[in-house]
Amino acid sequence: MDEQVLLTGAGGRVGEAVLRELGDEYDWRLLFHNPPDEEPDHEYRIGDVDDGDDVAKAVEGVGAVVHLAGDPRPSAPWDSVMRHNIDGTHNVYEAAVDEGVEKFVYASSNHAVGAYETDERTPEMYRAGDEFRLDGTELPRPGNHYGVSKASCEVMGRYYHDEYGISVCNIRIGNLTEGHPPIDYERGQAMWLSYPDCARIHRCALEADYEFETVYGISDNDRKYYSLERAREVLGYDPQDNSAEWDGDEKTV
Amino acid sequence: MDEQVLLTGAGGRVGEAVLRELGDEYDWRLLFHNPPDEEPDHEYRIGDVDDGDDVAKAVEGVGAVVHLAGDPRPSAPWDSVMRHNIDGTHNVYEAAVDEGVEKFVYASSNHAVGAYETDERTPEMYRAGDEFRLDGTELPRPGNHYGVSKASCEVMGRYYHDEYGISVCNIRIGNLTEGHPPIDYERGQAMWLSYPDCARIHRCALEADYEFETVYGISDNDRKYYSLERAREVLGYDPQDNSAEWDGDEKTV
Repeated sequence: MDEQVLLTGAGGRVGEAVLRELGDEYDWRLLFHNPPDEEPDHEYRIGDVDDGDDVAKAVEGVGAVVHLAGDPRPSAPWDSVMRHNIDGTHNVYEAAVDEGVEKFVYASSNHAVGAYETDERTPEMYRAGDEFRLDGTELPRPGNHYGVSKASCEVMGRYYHDEYGISVCNIRIGNLTEGHPPIDYERGQAMWLSYPDCARIHRCALEADYEFETVYGISDNDRKYYSLERAREVLGYDPQDNSAEWDGDEKTV
Repeated sequence: MDEQVLLTGAGGRVGEAVLRELGDEYDWRLLFHNPPDEEPDHEYRIGDVDDGDDVAKAVEGVGAVVHLAGDPRPSAPWDSVMRHNIDGTHNVYEAAVDEGVEKFVYASSNHAVGAYETDERTPEMYRAGDEFRLDGTELPRPGNHYGVSKASCEVMGRYYHDEYGISVCNIRIGNLTEGHPPIDYERGQAMWLSYPDCARIHRCALEADYEFETVYGISDNDRKYYSLERAREVLGYDPQDNSAEWDGDEKTV
């Protein structure tokens, strides 16, 4: 990707993971919701994805978008996710197709499929050896309003791809933590995404050729119920981390 | 269904088809967006699904909801479908679960999957003998913002079912016309839904036992690319009309 890349939600954790590893690899333009505490190393704007004018200015001239902005709280109320996530993502897609953007990487979430974690399947599905897998071809089953908003934006991306030809990659991000995987939390270990692997899958989504994809963004954990097959095959994602290599906050392998 | 049934969007065409055939079968409460021209035969309210208070009053005490209200235009702009369709449906679901409603029938649309009608598949897929079928298990591919809103509300229903246990049936309604099927319009003939069959599938959705279903609402047309299998099996839908039995506006069989 030689052209400038817009990253929205630059103040969030996914943005932090991406920029830490890929800060020098791309000519970034960052969109922050609130003024950053420290002066960023990249061109940046302050703006709100709810505001079509802010978004149009942010998207102007870029060749790709990594859209992370939105209310990130799994417990977020409907009005907030409708406005910040659903309507905000619509604004970014509209600006992107107006601008002729080629590639749109969308931060979806494990919460888009959270209701597959039924009482019958848990906690077994969180454990190594269990064979239950979601692979991105299944219909969403959100576990909360936040997940409803993420699933809605996934299908919104399908529309923008089909209608305008823009390449769209929905990444259902797992449990992103800095440093060690979650401790005493089997579910979090099963969907752990390390910071370096988070950057890797975003690099792949910016570099690979594809039409419309929905993939899972997790590390190569022994425990897992999300398939990495599609991300490996289509994006060339090669995760390097595994929650099984940790004992608490100590890496053992 | 012995309890009262709320029908929203009572002034629309689907509502007209349902009430014409099933007016005497249920104790209806109707929600109109605008005051009706003639005094309805049933209890009714005037209100807006965008308004949570209007909706709460409309849902109070009912045992089932047939939710048809929304902007019905395939060309409707985003702001309208976001407000009237997505946010409106959220209001109705919230009120329904608050009220302990058992069954929620949602008028989805063929436009939720309109982008399956690609240049490669059409017009062949509209013709009798073509074997392409959508059966409700496929991921949505909306062809317009209206379709995005319908697909978003389908997955919203999945959430409300999983979280609260309410039975949800999404009916992807085809091309509903009064009297004869569309003339000189292969696509419309393939997804024709007669008024009597529209009433039939809504009766089935009110009577059958199910958890969460997404079915196609069309007549038993010789031309078809939507499977009726799931509606037949789970709902017991037995359509009686077929666009092939018509030559223009004349019934020939």
